[in-house]
Amino acid sequence: MATHTDKRYEEELADLRHRVLEMGGLVERQIADAIRALVTQDVGLADAVVLKDHDVNRLDVEIDELCIRLLALRQPAARDLRFITTALKITTDLERIGDRAASIAERAKELQTEPQLKPYVDIPRMAEIATRMLRESLDAFVRYDADLALAVCHEDDVVDKLNSQIFRELVSFMLEDPAVITRAMRVLFVSKYLERIADHATNISEMVVFMVKGKSIRHVSQLPASV
Amino acid sequence: MATHTDKRYEEELADLRHRVLEMGGLVERQIADAIRALVTQDVGLADAVVLKDHDVNRLDVEIDELCIRLLALRQPAARDLRFITTALKITTDLERIGDRAASIAERAKELQTEPQLKPYVDIPRMAEIATRMLRESLDAFVRYDADLALAVCHEDDVVDKLNSQIFRELVSFMLEDPAVITRAMRVLFVSKYLERIADHATNISEMVVFMVKGKSIRHVSQLPASV
Repeated sequence: MATHTDKRYEEELADLRHRVLEMGGLVERQIADAIRALVTQDVGLADAVVLKDHDVNRLDVEIDELCIRLLALRQPAARDLRFITTALKITTDLERIGDRAASIAERAKELQTEPQLKPYVDIPRMAEIATRMLRESLDAFVRYDADLALAVCHEDDVVDKLNSQIFRELVSFMLEDPAVITRAMRVLFVSKYLERIADHATNISEMVVFMVKGKSIRHVSQLPASV
Repeated sequence: MATHTDKRYEEELADLRHRVLEMGGLVERQIADAIRALVTQDVGLADAVVLKDHDVNRLDVEIDELCIRLLALRQPAARDLRFITTALKITTDLERIGDRAASIAERAKELQTEPQLKPYVDIPRMAEIATRMLRESLDAFVRYDADLALAVCHEDDVVDKLNSQIFRELVSFMLEDPAVITRAMRVLFVSKYLERIADHATNISEMVVFMVKGKSIRHVSQLPASV
């Protein structure tokens, strides 16, 4: 009887891991599609990204319900308890990443009527790094890998620097030709959204370090080299 | 013996409520101080807001630990369980609001070296509404008040409209005089941060509706008039 319960419990925990990764995979595709819609000026794809936000939201609710059920019925012990409470918090970040991808798609729709300011190079690069950070933060979560999580936190600097660089470049475009101000602002917002996505991946990673090590690395002036 | 345990448990739940409100009060003051630093060009106050972010972070960790302890030792039943898991999620939003207040303070520091574009009227008004939304969302949480939470969600529109209005006004300033572009962008970011703060208050309220009614109102195309 106990074995039966244990097996069921293990399955539920595996299901939780699986669903968090599924939600991560979904928002990862949302980011990729939103950037592709921007670069190829594909309004249909941009619309699809906005619509798909619904699936992300459904998974958010389902995962929360699964966590609450596990907490109510299984009375999980220390390690599992921290895993489940971290999952509860991570879904919020994943859901917000989905929102930001939808916002990129909205800007892509606005921008498609106008000629490009210049070919998009830094924006897709930023998207690539932010997406990798997201994937690694969730890998770190399901594997209890605090070192990988810490590595993600260190990567956030690269994205912040790219964002500042794009900001300066766009401001110089605006100064040269005020006619491009609105267009440049929209691109600037896309850059900001990507920076926020990287922030969310960093937040997830910080939660993973806390889950594994019981140590908060949030808001420290200097990130540790190892945990 | 059971009575003793029950009393201790009730005290712990009251402590949790108290600390969430304390954290809310702290970030509320952070927003007010950041806006005051902006309007009065007070660099010392802006620095204080950035430093105080540490206290917000400490409370975030403490509340999470309290929630995990309650879940581990008290095996709370349905209503309390949902209250505790919601508290776990709310702290993340409160912590991010603190981050945004610190970002406003950073922009205030950058802006204090330059003359004001125009007197700040809409920004303080936006801050006032966002702060009220935050306070009401937490009141709704501790009182299980789904109606109040829904009212907060409806207010988000007002803040979004103010943000769009500020955006248009600042872009027109930039078009008239490219020399103010950098300054206008900084004010625009402050407006964006306030809009994000109102979003976080809305997120908290959506979680409260879900906690009380077991019904998700996220991402619905039309908010219900009542829940």
